[in-house]
Amino acid sequence: MTALEAIKGRTSYRGGYEDTPVPREDLIKIMEAGLCAPSGCNTQTTSLIAVDDPDVLNGLRKAVGPEFTISGPAIICVLTQAIPAYKNTCFNVHDYSAAIENMLVAIVELGYQSCWMEGVITDEHQLGKKMANYLKVPEDYELVCFLPVGIAKDPLNYVQRKPFNERAWFNGFKK
Amino acid sequence: MTALEAIKGRTSYRGGYEDTPVPREDLIKIMEAGLCAPSGCNTQTTSLIAVDDPDVLNGLRKAVGPEFTISGPAIICVLTQAIPAYKNTCFNVHDYSAAIENMLVAIVELGYQSCWMEGVITDEHQLGKKMANYLKVPEDYELVCFLPVGIAKDPLNYVQRKPFNERAWFNGFKK
Repeated sequence: MTALEAIKGRTSYRGGYEDTPVPREDLIKIMEAGLCAPSGCNTQTTSLIAVDDPDVLNGLRKAVGPEFTISGPAIICVLTQAIPAYKNTCFNVHDYSAAIENMLVAIVELGYQSCWMEGVITDEHQLGKKMANYLKVPEDYELVCFLPVGIAKDPLNYVQRKPFNERAWFNGFKK
Repeated sequence: MTALEAIKGRTSYRGGYEDTPVPREDLIKIMEAGLCAPSGCNTQTTSLIAVDDPDVLNGLRKAVGPEFTISGPAIICVLTQAIPAYKNTCFNVHDYSAAIENMLVAIVELGYQSCWMEGVITDEHQLGKKMANYLKVPEDYELVCFLPVGIAKDPLNYVQRKPFNERAWFNGFKK
């Protein structure tokens, strides 16, 4: 699969996953893709914890409570550190977003599906904080997102997007 | 080139570019890759302006002044709109960062080089604002980044990164 094919094939998958475990070597390839993303002034603000041990996954499920479902045979948790880069500005949100997108594309290329799970774990219920506590993440890291990884059980859906010429122009704003 | 190869091959290129123009069809492929990135609740907050007209490029160079160099035979400017997505939170920085990463990977796959130019145009000199004014970008869009696109004239450099096991772990924080 070319990069463009993987990029275009990616979608936010919210269906069920097969129980089939994800081999460690595939998780490593996905995480390496994430860590290859650029970071502001090479501050490398993004770190990752993959969870593929069923006991740890169940522990996380208990930690977040019954209102929220963590699905998939493996997940990759995204940690960020607010380290100033250029002129005291932190680019850590940019950094981890680029890392997440690389991982989502790598996940598709390797035959899996995923979904960027962030808003639901960083809102007022602070599920990300509960997950971080369970995984013994130190205070100077924030767990902001997790990506389920697994083989899709259900059909993929692609969101409707505005046409190209409503979002992209040449040599000046044209809307 | 597979997605993983393009992701690993990407680097922040700060050298010179050949004058060879970038065909419009390649710019469109790159921009499409950017617009394929996910956005919080599908708000599609990212828009793009490619500049490949030498007169417009020169106009931009004049607009930002002689202290800053816009290089490359083409550039892609990244615009963002702060549209609330989930629970009134804006994810537009996440959205455009994912779009930029997709474009950087597509640029490598198509044989070009680039660099994420953001901090230097959004700092106190507000060069991004000057570029936006010249391109007639409305007030509700912010020009936050541009990506040069072209064939590299100089050798590529890859930054040193921390080893995998200092940034990635399995089933718990392990540092």
